[in-house]
Amino acid sequence: MEQYNQRNITMMMDLYEMTMANGYYLSGCADNRVVFDAFYRRNPDDSGFAVFAGLEQVIEYIENMHFDAADIDYFHSLGLFSDDFLDYLAGFRFRGDISALPEGTIMYPDEPILSVTAPLLDAQLVETALLAQVNHQSLIATKTHRIVRAAQGRGVSDFGARRAHNVDAAVYGARAAYIGGANGTATVLAGQMFDIPVSGTMAHSWVMFHDDEYTAFRRYAETYPNSTVLLIDTYDVLGSGVPNAIRVANEVLIPRGKRLKGVRLDSGDLAYLSKRVREMLDAAGLQDCKIVASNSLDEFTIQSILGQGACIDSFGVGERLITAKSDPVFGAVYKMVAVEKDGIFQPKIKISENAGKITNPGKKCLYRVYDRDGKAVADLLTLADEKVDLSVPYRYVDPQKPWEVRYFRDCTAKPLQQLVIKDGKRTFPTRPLDELRDFVEAQLETEIWQEEQRFENPHCHFVDMSPEYYSLKMGLLNDDQLRHGENAQS
Amino acid sequence: MEQYNQRNITMMMDLYEMTMANGYYLSGCADNRVVFDAFYRRNPDDSGFAVFAGLEQVIEYIENMHFDAADIDYFHSLGLFSDDFLDYLAGFRFRGDISALPEGTIMYPDEPILSVTAPLLDAQLVETALLAQVNHQSLIATKTHRIVRAAQGRGVSDFGARRAHNVDAAVYGARAAYIGGANGTATVLAGQMFDIPVSGTMAHSWVMFHDDEYTAFRRYAETYPNSTVLLIDTYDVLGSGVPNAIRVANEVLIPRGKRLKGVRLDSGDLAYLSKRVREMLDAAGLQDCKIVASNSLDEFTIQSILGQGACIDSFGVGERLITAKSDPVFGAVYKMVAVEKDGIFQPKIKISENAGKITNPGKKCLYRVYDRDGKAVADLLTLADEKVDLSVPYRYVDPQKPWEVRYFRDCTAKPLQQLVIKDGKRTFPTRPLDELRDFVEAQLETEIWQEEQRFENPHCHFVDMSPEYYSLKMGLLNDDQLRHGENAQS
Repeated sequence: MEQYNQRNITMMMDLYEMTMANGYYLSGCADNRVVFDAFYRRNPDDSGFAVFAGLEQVIEYIENMHFDAADIDYFHSLGLFSDDFLDYLAGFRFRGDISALPEGTIMYPDEPILSVTAPLLDAQLVETALLAQVNHQSLIATKTHRIVRAAQGRGVSDFGARRAHNVDAAVYGARAAYIGGANGTATVLAGQMFDIPVSGTMAHSWVMFHDDEYTAFRRYAETYPNSTVLLIDTYDVLGSGVPNAIRVANEVLIPRGKRLKGVRLDSGDLAYLSKRVREMLDAAGLQDCKIVASNSLDEFTIQSILGQGACIDSFGVGERLITAKSDPVFGAVYKMVAVEKDGIFQPKIKISENAGKITNPGKKCLYRVYDRDGKAVADLLTLADEKVDLSVPYRYVDPQKPWEVRYFRDCTAKPLQQLVIKDGKRTFPTRPLDELRDFVEAQLETEIWQEEQRFENPHCHFVDMSPEYYSLKMGLLNDDQLRHGENAQS
Repeated sequence: MEQYNQRNITMMMDLYEMTMANGYYLSGCADNRVVFDAFYRRNPDDSGFAVFAGLEQVIEYIENMHFDAADIDYFHSLGLFSDDFLDYLAGFRFRGDISALPEGTIMYPDEPILSVTAPLLDAQLVETALLAQVNHQSLIATKTHRIVRAAQGRGVSDFGARRAHNVDAAVYGARAAYIGGANGTATVLAGQMFDIPVSGTMAHSWVMFHDDEYTAFRRYAETYPNSTVLLIDTYDVLGSGVPNAIRVANEVLIPRGKRLKGVRLDSGDLAYLSKRVREMLDAAGLQDCKIVASNSLDEFTIQSILGQGACIDSFGVGERLITAKSDPVFGAVYKMVAVEKDGIFQPKIKISENAGKITNPGKKCLYRVYDRDGKAVADLLTLADEKVDLSVPYRYVDPQKPWEVRYFRDCTAKPLQQLVIKDGKRTFPTRPLDELRDFVEAQLETEIWQEEQRFENPHCHFVDMSPEYYSLKMGLLNDDQLRHGENAQS
């Protein structure tokens, strides 16, 4: 386990990071300080928000980052890089600072969720590993919370390991699912690594191995009398599964002073079957026996099944959670936003044919703005060194409607990013997973509008700008176009 | 790297495998030999076939499988398992046999792609890790070959690491993509672990860091004069990117006797831009300069862009390949098909409400049947000990139309599974990745009908049965229903 956990993923990079780093090293600008922002452009599934996850693994990666002798040998074998640069790399440790949203923060498109201020070489080398952690875990945490919302208070457990995109996806996916509100996982390695509650009872093979279903159920109840949950759909749910489960409850468990904890349905019409199963259990005096359902579930099937009055107490959700099947790409990108020159960070902007792909330039601050009831009414981007005073009416710009004159009144604002790495070392404690999970839930209960939490046409959270920040961006857009047009003609 | 590669994924299991194993151990049937088949039910994206990948990692996992002291401690902490069982587990090594399709085999739904014959305990404990490897890599290999087919001979390279579902998904995904026909990857760790060709040039940050685009291009060409590929869409493709690239080709490369190898487009209308870029490069005498395109591509966008006459020489394909975005779940399952009793394997069948979920029971053989031209006309399931002689007309049953009387005439048949693990030890060599990639391509060129390779309504490959095998299955279906119906009423 420890071995798996202490993996060195320094080589998890795109080759272009190395070709650029070698180039920077050779031209003497590798130590020039720069700022990169990670941000994303669209909430998956057209959700109203996303859940930021994966930060702990980014911090672990940065602290552990180094190149082994075998890595340097591999780079030599490619014949692309200078010996001096590779000698330098052999002693490399990350030297920069990283600020980020605390893990579990509710976030929105075009916000800096993580900012790296570092020597150019360092900032460039971490791009891919950093994005892969943030993209994967934010994807699964966001998807899971959709499923949890659909379940309306019923438990949701991660059953997805076998359909995950390999081992990491199962293990870190289970972690992200827990942050996103799942109450446990079936994946043992995830339980072991992250202390997530694990659950599991039997597969169809248990029933098929025994001579008949009744014997299979009886053996299981005798082995686990305190936690008997029986899988009732191997042959015929209503014809044999439920009758055999009731018989075992009466013949094996009740004489021992135990109760049948639950039955699981893994196929068939879950809405119909669960109602009939409930009736049969209740009629047998097993009102306390829970019904667990699984079988290719997601937020939409759960919503539909519950809408039909299904009698299901908790859900095991597998492939559609662990792959985020309906929208399996979380698209955070990592863009240069400033370059230090003579001690001052000069803002940089990336123009694009698509207006939506133009970046927010410069070192900046991100605030969440709350009304008197503690509801988050907007987020606000400002210059890094700007003073934000909301004790008086505060003029801001909605970049979608910059012509309007708008004010925050009677509001408070909280900066969202925190320093997590300083000079390559962790400055932010590892937070227990339960704390992250509670943090997500608390934000959604008290701060985030219900209107942002619905599936259909959720309210689009405002990400506003200070007038100064808006001016900076507009100025750069004009300048850059002019300047690069000229160069091309020279 | 070695540390990453030598990971122990024994704990990558669903908890129910442990609850069942403990139960089997306590009831004295853990050593009872059984057979499990892994198979899948539907080709992703409604493809005509899938590409089997991940076998090498299954073999590595099985050979390395063991529980560390920390694992046993964790199990003790759950309070679910007997001390005797956990003592036993501390010395556990896998004792069974595994047969499988050779990696890279073209496969179809409902076929046994991997069969485990082992003591019940051993067979049950490997379910999840085995499925996760096969599901993930088969998914990516199958998706990649779709993209490769759409590219019609142009190169396809994996650019997906940052959007992969964590590190494993990027690394083993790159491996699977290579098997599926990609000609390289941008992911350094994958190149290092599997000796896959790596490629990479520059990001937008390279261009943005320098004072202007021309300077950025010039610096890059001076550093990499033998492999200069320039990213031309940071500011304005036609207005500055291409003119600056041409200027660098003429001012920096040609005086050194070098040529501009390529330009890359990463945004905008790739069909339109690539044609204009080609004209400009040709007019400047750079007919040999290749155009590389990237930006959320998949088989459908590539097909469309090429249909519009785009001038693109190779594709970098990222998020939609590495997540198999259009259909990100490969659904192989692992089902018990036989249990040894008095030295004979008794077939077992899993009934289901959905006819499509009924399993193929028993120990069996899978053949591929070829006509005189070497085309694969069907696959054939038989009993394990049945003799198949195609030198005379061979009567078979199409399970979709069992009433028809059909014969293979002038055909040959080849058994598809090979023994890869015997008594827990590898019996099948590690095959170089290039060999697997060539094997996939050779099957699709010479054996598999073009009609199975199209995207729209591909021909559905026949998976037929010997009359004896068909009788076995039908007999079990009747028996089982009767028997379990009876039990339920007792």
